Amino acid sequence: MSIRLLLNVLGKLLLLEAGLMTLPLFISLMDRGPDTLAFVYTMLILLAAGLPAVMQQPKSREVRAKEGLVAVSLAWLLLGAFGALPFMFAGVTGSYIDALFETVSGFTTTGASILPAVEGLPRGILFWRSFTHWVGGMGVLILTLAVMPKLSGRGAMLAKAESPGPTFEKIAPRMRDSARLMYAVYSALTLVQLGLLLLTGLPLFDAAIHTLGTAGTGGFSNRNLSVGAYNNPWAEGVITVFMLLFGMNFIVYFRLLRGEGFKAFKSEEVRAYWLLALGAMLLISLELLPRYGSFFGSFRHASFQVSSIMSTTGFATTDFALWPGFSHILLLMLMLIGACAGSTAGGIKVSRILILGKATSREIGQSAAPRKLRLLKLDGKLLSEETVRGALVFFFIYIAFLMVGTVAAATDGHDFVTSFSAAASCLSNIGPGLGLVGPVGNFGIFSPQVKALLTFLMLAGRLEFIPLLTLFHRELWSKGH
Amino acid sequence: MSIRLLLNVLGKLLLLEAGLMTLPLFISLMDRGPDTLAFVYTMLILLAAGLPAVMQQPKSREVRAKEGLVAVSLAWLLLGAFGALPFMFAGVTGSYIDALFETVSGFTTTGASILPAVEGLPRGILFWRSFTHWVGGMGVLILTLAVMPKLSGRGAMLAKAESPGPTFEKIAPRMRDSARLMYAVYSALTLVQLGLLLLTGLPLFDAAIHTLGTAGTGGFSNRNLSVGAYNNPWAEGVITVFMLLFGMNFIVYFRLLRGEGFKAFKSEEVRAYWLLALGAMLLISLELLPRYGSFFGSFRHASFQVSSIMSTTGFATTDFALWPGFSHILLLMLMLIGACAGSTAGGIKVSRILILGKATSREIGQSAAPRKLRLLKLDGKLLSEETVRGALVFFFIYIAFLMVGTVAAATDGHDFVTSFSAAASCLSNIGPGLGLVGPVGNFGIFSPQVKALLTFLMLAGRLEFIPLLTLFHRELWSKGH
Repeated sequence: MSIRLLLNVLGKLLLLEAGLMTLPLFISLMDRGPDTLAFVYTMLILLAAGLPAVMQQPKSREVRAKEGLVAVSLAWLLLGAFGALPFMFAGVTGSYIDALFETVSGFTTTGASILPAVEGLPRGILFWRSFTHWVGGMGVLILTLAVMPKLSGRGAMLAKAESPGPTFEKIAPRMRDSARLMYAVYSALTLVQLGLLLLTGLPLFDAAIHTLGTAGTGGFSNRNLSVGAYNNPWAEGVITVFMLLFGMNFIVYFRLLRGEGFKAFKSEEVRAYWLLALGAMLLISLELLPRYGSFFGSFRHASFQVSSIMSTTGFATTDFALWPGFSHILLLMLMLIGACAGSTAGGIKVSRILILGKATSREIGQSAAPRKLRLLKLDGKLLSEETVRGALVFFFIYIAFLMVGTVAAATDGHDFVTSFSAAASCLSNIGPGLGLVGPVGNFGIFSPQVKALLTFLMLAGRLEFIPLLTLFHRELWSKGH
Repeated sequence: MSIRLLLNVLGKLLLLEAGLMTLPLFISLMDRGPDTLAFVYTMLILLAAGLPAVMQQPKSREVRAKEGLVAVSLAWLLLGAFGALPFMFAGVTGSYIDALFETVSGFTTTGASILPAVEGLPRGILFWRSFTHWVGGMGVLILTLAVMPKLSGRGAMLAKAESPGPTFEKIAPRMRDSARLMYAVYSALTLVQLGLLLLTGLPLFDAAIHTLGTAGTGGFSNRNLSVGAYNNPWAEGVITVFMLLFGMNFIVYFRLLRGEGFKAFKSEEVRAYWLLALGAMLLISLELLPRYGSFFGSFRHASFQVSSIMSTTGFATTDFALWPGFSHILLLMLMLIGACAGSTAGGIKVSRILILGKATSREIGQSAAPRKLRLLKLDGKLLSEETVRGALVFFFIYIAFLMVGTVAAATDGHDFVTSFSAAASCLSNIGPGLGLVGPVGNFGIFSPQVKALLTFLMLAGRLEFIPLLTLFHRELWSKGH
């Protein structure tokens, strides 16, 4: 990949970001908000940086694997770096690292916030903050592919590097058609949820903010108490269901569109996902029964929290840190697993856990009877040894990042639960953790260097490590590769 | 493997256990202790169970892999089940599950205790409790191989299943010679430590107890305050150094015996182990500086705790749960890593971490430049893909057990740090954890079912999962394999 091609792609991305900002700018103008100029300045900067880059006409359009990975890493870094500017210009955050943390938290659909209170912030800023969830959820390069001309030929490599999960499946022969189809389904689901939330009585702006947060499985709210502020069981119900829906592999929706009916759900991952979610809801409901008096009351909170954590959204209706030990430890473990591959959710992903379980079972069989050939399958399809090894290595990297992240976060002197859950929550792109960063706390308690570390963890988790780690691999910088 | 052969092997093991009990019986007789009959009864039961089993003359002596794994699992289960009897008969523990927990904790060199106080217990019982560390440390089947006739031919399979680490290296062509050489080195090191501890002024019995606990990297003490009770910097120094020595791969000692000098330490694992240990000591010393005033005072406690945790021994000189966040979180992470393969220590093992790191680096390189062939090496020797995959799967099983164990332990309602560190500590065969099971707490707080679970985790960690999991694998119970 030539530098020109790289500049061309990244330039398009910056122009797209400027385009995306027209929506919050529009809201700010309607409100005559104090944040109008913040968006105008940022958009001018984006145009100034993006236009010359786009002018670069690449000679070759070939994208090699390594270059795709580098492009994806740089794309996400730049998007966060420029997307943070409105927060700075509007004076919402005190330092640039805070603005960067908040923006990367948005794009990576984490939803961890350094803001102690969000009520009273300009609505343009609040909309931008939540809109980043929606954009980052499905992938920024996939969006670039869908809307920008002349990128389709070299898109697959970029989309693959950005798309979460152990395998990558194109849903249409041409990558651009895939990207458009994905965004069409994504938008349709988003609109349905928005309509339903309006029916439950939420004001338009609040409904929009929470729909964006649900769709991207992000979790930013415009209320300090998150969804709990409304005390509206219907709205909670809609959000509970849609968090789970957005955490499901989108392949299911394409298969439904193809008219496969119930067969669309015939996926080991999707079944394990629902089983895990319903099982956890039931167990927690039972433990919470004495606390809430009725099974309905207990299930209402249990189902919301389980969906919120498993889908890695991070909305809250109650401070689950006050729940008894078993419930919140179970939630902490679910944080690591996350939801399905090919969704907007983070975490290790259910399909990886399935592959790891199968690999374990094979290993035991292999020790017992070494001479037998054993092949692994998922949904009846053979898993390549590459995929299995990839999932195993991913798991190691994930836990290693979690451990090192916990120790590094602990240099700020907070307790184990705070440091551990902050690292886990950022790595799995969830948002709130437990302890001091629980649903009623915020990440402002950390020092700038720990905020920078957690920002890196959010990006590493969202991009599933490999693209970012490639930047540090010596072979990238050696010649001849 | 015929049932007869299995009975024959297990019978020999029970006779060996009866033989081992002559030592505590001797101490009890000298003391005219109240525990004499407890040992006599147990030894009679062991003889009654062992002798008829040994009478079984197997027709074939072939041991297949699967059968070796089953034999190892049953051997450890039986050893714990019978070894628990003296605790029951002497009235030291209230229930059988408590006695079993304590005994398995001994043999697996965990050192987690359900006893609130040990001072005042009969010395025969205290010796038996610590002696199990020494026996379990190097391996009970390896000991059986070394001392029992007619087992050498089929020994390699058994020794391999019991020996910790990602690879297994015979140090002599005949397995029995290997086993004898290992026990010779082990005994010599043990005697040297005993001599040094006597020089520091510890009474003979105390020196013996703490030497057995160090050699097996177990951690049972005859003092309620563990090593801290003596407030003897020289004794602490000896134990610190020997904990690290027993956590080192024993291959180093064989190479030293062969006269290789400094070249004996030329091992990636051994170097990484010392680097990690010294690095952690230094970091913790620095954080503790304000607390202890001088670098010496701070280093004294830091080096002891780091050695104790990394070697998975679990002795304590101070309640490190009261240390600031970073230090005790770093210790918690070191719990998972453990020490070297081929030592008496538990945990994931440094060499596995090295292999996992290499596999990760390869995976990143592979994504960046897929067409290049990449082979992994450790100490200049090629690692087979089987070994690499084995290490990756081991890591997943370890973390999965840790997570499920934490959630299951949490059903008792204790906090996260208690549940998590209890599971981690048992799985890595360390002993004390943090929170309610910290150096000054004990495992008596758990319900019988959680104690049973933790007992299982100790065995699973010591045998590195595969032998025990084989018992649950359906292929074991199906015909034709």
